[in-house]
Amino acid sequence: MHPSLLQDAGCPKEIPHNEKLLSLKYESLDYDNSENQLFLEEERRMSFLGFKCLEISRWVICGLIGFLTGLIACCIDIAVENLAGVKYFVVKQNIEKFTEVGGLSISLILWAVLNAAFVMVGAVIVAFFEPGAAGSGIPQIKCYLNGVKIPRVVRLKTLVVKVCGVICSVAGGLAVGKEGPMIHSGAVVAAGVSQGRSTSLKKDFKIFEYFRRDTEKRDFVSAGAAAGVSAAFGAPVGGVLFSLEEGASFWNQMLTWRIFFASMISTFTLNFFLSIYNKKPGDLSSPGLINFGRFESDVSFLDFSTLLLVNHGAILKCVCVCVLRYVHQPCLQVMEAMLVAAVTATVSFAMIYFSNDCQPLGPDQSEDYPLQLFCADGEYNSMATAFFNTPERSVRSLFHNPPGSYNPLTLSLFTLTYFFLACWTYGLTVSAGVFIPSLLIGAAWGRLFGILLASITPDGSIWADPGKYALIGAAAQLGGIVRMTLSLTVIMVEATGNVTYGLPIMLVLLTAKIVGDYFVEGLYDIHIKLQSVPFLHLEAPATSHWLTAREVMSAPVTCFNRIEKVGTIVDVLSNTSTNHNGFPVVVPVAVCGLILRSQLIVLLKHKVFVELARSRLTQRKLQLKDFRDAYPRFPPIQSIHISQDERECMMDLTEFMNPTPYTVPQETSLPRVFKLFRALGLRHLVVVDSENRVVGLVTRKDLARYHLGKHGLEEMQLAQT
Amino acid sequence: MHPSLLQDAGCPKEIPHNEKLLSLKYESLDYDNSENQLFLEEERRMSFLGFKCLEISRWVICGLIGFLTGLIACCIDIAVENLAGVKYFVVKQNIEKFTEVGGLSISLILWAVLNAAFVMVGAVIVAFFEPGAAGSGIPQIKCYLNGVKIPRVVRLKTLVVKVCGVICSVAGGLAVGKEGPMIHSGAVVAAGVSQGRSTSLKKDFKIFEYFRRDTEKRDFVSAGAAAGVSAAFGAPVGGVLFSLEEGASFWNQMLTWRIFFASMISTFTLNFFLSIYNKKPGDLSSPGLINFGRFESDVSFLDFSTLLLVNHGAILKCVCVCVLRYVHQPCLQVMEAMLVAAVTATVSFAMIYFSNDCQPLGPDQSEDYPLQLFCADGEYNSMATAFFNTPERSVRSLFHNPPGSYNPLTLSLFTLTYFFLACWTYGLTVSAGVFIPSLLIGAAWGRLFGILLASITPDGSIWADPGKYALIGAAAQLGGIVRMTLSLTVIMVEATGNVTYGLPIMLVLLTAKIVGDYFVEGLYDIHIKLQSVPFLHLEAPATSHWLTAREVMSAPVTCFNRIEKVGTIVDVLSNTSTNHNGFPVVVPVAVCGLILRSQLIVLLKHKVFVELARSRLTQRKLQLKDFRDAYPRFPPIQSIHISQDERECMMDLTEFMNPTPYTVPQETSLPRVFKLFRALGLRHLVVVDSENRVVGLVTRKDLARYHLGKHGLEEMQLAQT
Repeated sequence: MHPSLLQDAGCPKEIPHNEKLLSLKYESLDYDNSENQLFLEEERRMSFLGFKCLEISRWVICGLIGFLTGLIACCIDIAVENLAGVKYFVVKQNIEKFTEVGGLSISLILWAVLNAAFVMVGAVIVAFFEPGAAGSGIPQIKCYLNGVKIPRVVRLKTLVVKVCGVICSVAGGLAVGKEGPMIHSGAVVAAGVSQGRSTSLKKDFKIFEYFRRDTEKRDFVSAGAAAGVSAAFGAPVGGVLFSLEEGASFWNQMLTWRIFFASMISTFTLNFFLSIYNKKPGDLSSPGLINFGRFESDVSFLDFSTLLLVNHGAILKCVCVCVLRYVHQPCLQVMEAMLVAAVTATVSFAMIYFSNDCQPLGPDQSEDYPLQLFCADGEYNSMATAFFNTPERSVRSLFHNPPGSYNPLTLSLFTLTYFFLACWTYGLTVSAGVFIPSLLIGAAWGRLFGILLASITPDGSIWADPGKYALIGAAAQLGGIVRMTLSLTVIMVEATGNVTYGLPIMLVLLTAKIVGDYFVEGLYDIHIKLQSVPFLHLEAPATSHWLTAREVMSAPVTCFNRIEKVGTIVDVLSNTSTNHNGFPVVVPVAVCGLILRSQLIVLLKHKVFVELARSRLTQRKLQLKDFRDAYPRFPPIQSIHISQDERECMMDLTEFMNPTPYTVPQETSLPRVFKLFRALGLRHLVVVDSENRVVGLVTRKDLARYHLGKHGLEEMQLAQT
Repeated sequence: MHPSLLQDAGCPKEIPHNEKLLSLKYESLDYDNSENQLFLEEERRMSFLGFKCLEISRWVICGLIGFLTGLIACCIDIAVENLAGVKYFVVKQNIEKFTEVGGLSISLILWAVLNAAFVMVGAVIVAFFEPGAAGSGIPQIKCYLNGVKIPRVVRLKTLVVKVCGVICSVAGGLAVGKEGPMIHSGAVVAAGVSQGRSTSLKKDFKIFEYFRRDTEKRDFVSAGAAAGVSAAFGAPVGGVLFSLEEGASFWNQMLTWRIFFASMISTFTLNFFLSIYNKKPGDLSSPGLINFGRFESDVSFLDFSTLLLVNHGAILKCVCVCVLRYVHQPCLQVMEAMLVAAVTATVSFAMIYFSNDCQPLGPDQSEDYPLQLFCADGEYNSMATAFFNTPERSVRSLFHNPPGSYNPLTLSLFTLTYFFLACWTYGLTVSAGVFIPSLLIGAAWGRLFGILLASITPDGSIWADPGKYALIGAAAQLGGIVRMTLSLTVIMVEATGNVTYGLPIMLVLLTAKIVGDYFVEGLYDIHIKLQSVPFLHLEAPATSHWLTAREVMSAPVTCFNRIEKVGTIVDVLSNTSTNHNGFPVVVPVAVCGLILRSQLIVLLKHKVFVELARSRLTQRKLQLKDFRDAYPRFPPIQSIHISQDERECMMDLTEFMNPTPYTVPQETSLPRVFKLFRALGLRHLVVVDSENRVVGLVTRKDLARYHLGKHGLEEMQLAQT
């Protein structure tokens, strides 16, 4: 059978961000074990005790993942607190010095320069060293868990840059949060720890070798992402649900339980070390990076109806946010980030300067950096609590400050300004999350709503607590942006520490999702679409029963014989147009197995040829270990030298192919194919006719291509880039 | 092809409870849609709007399920409170009357008679009307969600008997709880509402007809079970996780979100109606049947190490519990239940009578029925708070009463007695749950531990709160018995209302599971095993890579031709030994489809014969609706009359068979077969050779047969009963 051109050759070469295209440059991960003879032999050799040991190592790894993720969160938190503390202290001193004598413009410049300096460091490392560390990393992790290999996403270097970057950008006063990046960090930690080696550091600890394949690695990455969520929000259950919502297609009880373990350890580690840092060892009251504070009062039924009203306006941010920038030169990217930082400082300063909203200082000194400015003694500038503060603290004050702490005008101005700042900031080349700015905008807007409600109703006292509205507003805003549902509800409830808020939060998130979906997709989905990632949703589009496997499959397919000429194999692998990375093995025409490109590469590298095996009887038999050592960075075919003589040799694939690939008849409907493919996390699905002959191959791109558009089922184009 | 005997004919006929056997009497549910031509035509006819409407009806149904489940929980709660209130009031009056003058034996008799009377009613309806309503129903729901059809488990009659039964048994003072049965009730509600008709009441509302198949019904039953958990414990997230842990194999985001919605509505409905009943409308503070009360104090690190200690002893109850009774006559069953009720009253009375532990009455009168008995004025008998009370209240007092409320001796006596009572009660023919007695025993034992710890440590004050130990003890005991992990942790945390208890509860549950599994399986699993149910766990046994599909499959298989003689079909269906209920269709030898017994029955009933179709051209074409109308109670083959002439007719199966059944090659390893089978919720999996010829059929029993025993992989026998 001949290798053949599978893609439409008419595609243009350079395709920029386009959501109507599906890129072919992304490889898929293989969540189905290749059960070849080597694998089965190993499994059969293993005793029951061996399996127990494996299970125990899985638990140990999950514990480690949780511990390290918690530790990283702790480091980020302490670093940010200290850097921001120093910055605010210096600026505050300066402002106080110049308030009396005049010349506050010097303070402004100082503030802007400090911000820009921090942000510069953050932007330089991201733009020049590891562009993959930009943003929150959540879309990338979503793709990874979905089964798409995003290059460099779980590398050590990415982690280091991400952590340093997020510290700089948060300390630099950008309208960003440090929570989103924690999820990515957790995932990288997991990918590293579970493999027992670091390819970047060229260090192999020779442990956990069994876990060096996509299936196992994916499980650990789920655990890492969950640990990240857990550390970020102090929400271990929410973390588990996040992982499940985004990643797992097949519910495995033991896996879930391990993920939960990692989450718990992570939040506990963070809590423990922070309690030591705060000199109150043993007081486990800060389980996450952001702490909403405990909402003590229960929700009463009266609140319900109105709580829902908060929601509708707060959703459309997405539209604005998706204007992703097209600045591609690293230098310009750094400059832009610095500009945004300086502008943020300027705007904040102007807001504080021109606001005359003075509030009396509370007896408990709950403000960390009360700015007196032009207020009378014993009073502080209320706008400064929102702008002259880390966003986490601002959120908390919006939730918990007593009624009357904020003047409605101040709040509306703040909401508006922060909204535009956040929109501009999103998409900068810095590592930063979008959770906190969303929460902050939502909280401000919700609190505003609560204040207005109290003022227009005759008996204002029953709507007494505007903090509740701030919470609901925050939930609505965040829900409208990220469109997570179940996990976000649980995260919010856990961060709030009050179960009775569950139903209102859930209803708000549900409305936000429905209203939001009507206009535009969620932020992460937009992100994923713009990058043309072949992302598989949970189900095939509803109206796709018209399509069958015959129509969606790629055909003809390059097949190999069980004993194949080396030259043919090399030629096929060198031909970039046959990029399914998996090849059915046939005998003589019926399918009898499936072999992956990566396996063939290893076979070629070790020259496992029939003739050589006969001549060199002493040659060591190829083992599973050889495949694992090459995982996950298999060399390209060009780097393997095959001589002209060797091209004439034969290779016996029997032992290495997966002898029982999943197959479907060609009449199978698309939803049925989709279900099989998604539930088992497949990478290749062989389509056969009634005599078991290969007629086609279904891969991720063939399924991800179909989506429901405005005019019914639409098909996306495939692009080579 | 000839029908053939598939089972070992040597099995004895009458096989009592035996965990080494697998019964063949249970049918499986089919969670894979039979995508035949009728089905595909319907799906293709449906517009996008049609799918939207279906989606909306799903939400409406889930809302209804939640609402009705909450309402049922509310009714149970109010009924129990009132009946028990009346009972305790009468008994208390009587005791007070006779305490002075002597003759307390009359009070004892009164108490015992009242108890026995309540329990008699409960036992009679269960034993005589619907034995399926006995126990908590959780094992049955587990089986249903797993894919095993347990007869009569989701009938309306079962629900009615269950609700009345649980009210009687709890009001009758048995050592049982009303929480477990809520899960079963929720499931029945779901199965009823989602089908839009009641077969028992012979009423068809002609709505929701699309949902009349196993796949859809299962989804709703999951939602119902979750709503039940949610109403029972005020734990909506826990409910979702319970459903997922027990039921769903394939994680579907929309489904989960609907389940969550049902849970939320359920807990909210209960809360709302209870608040009205308690004359505090709008105060939503009782989200579940049991309310642990809010634990305000956070866990501190110091507690951690010791919290774990509580756990180890509290696990072995299982061993005792599994002595299931063998009383099979309904009359005897009722008598036994009454006896247990009377003995419970007697023992409780004796305990109260002989205990001299008097405690001063608190100023807030927190006790509902303080019994003074022989205590001084202004004091009450402490033993009575534990025994003379509904178990829910006792649990709450153990959690929250201030240190010093209980004397260690009282507590140990109580633990011991209640333990034996609970063991004896378990397995009675009454509908009742095991959650509350477990919690109560665990809480008593945990509190005892806390008190002892405080007394032996030099600085007792740091272990000040024995309520915490009660909580941990309760978790350990419950975990040791039911062996749920993730969902139970979340349920406990939600019922506690304090996230910081998550890690200790989780560690305790984990230890309880590990230690418990070492000795004996969980209670529900024991139950399932004793009934020889072919239950599929999440993964194949670890060491089963030795086995392939060829070894596990049933062969030879009865196959049909695409156009088959009616006589052959009738003969095959009448032959009870071919009980796979599914038959591959072949042309001429390669598999081209799969048809179910139920489909054949409908075809025979409507006499869809080739010859008749030719003669009667006007005959209405068979539609999907005809299959749905017959679902789920398809008539037996004996009830369908086929004349001798008709036996010679032919039937064309093409339109009705599933043309794309899943197949596997015969070399596929057992874990791989298992994964496919479990992930897609299959009922039949066709095993084929390399030319696509049928060589065997894998069903649930073939997979459930293998389990890990002490000597490695063991195979269970199949039994006809």
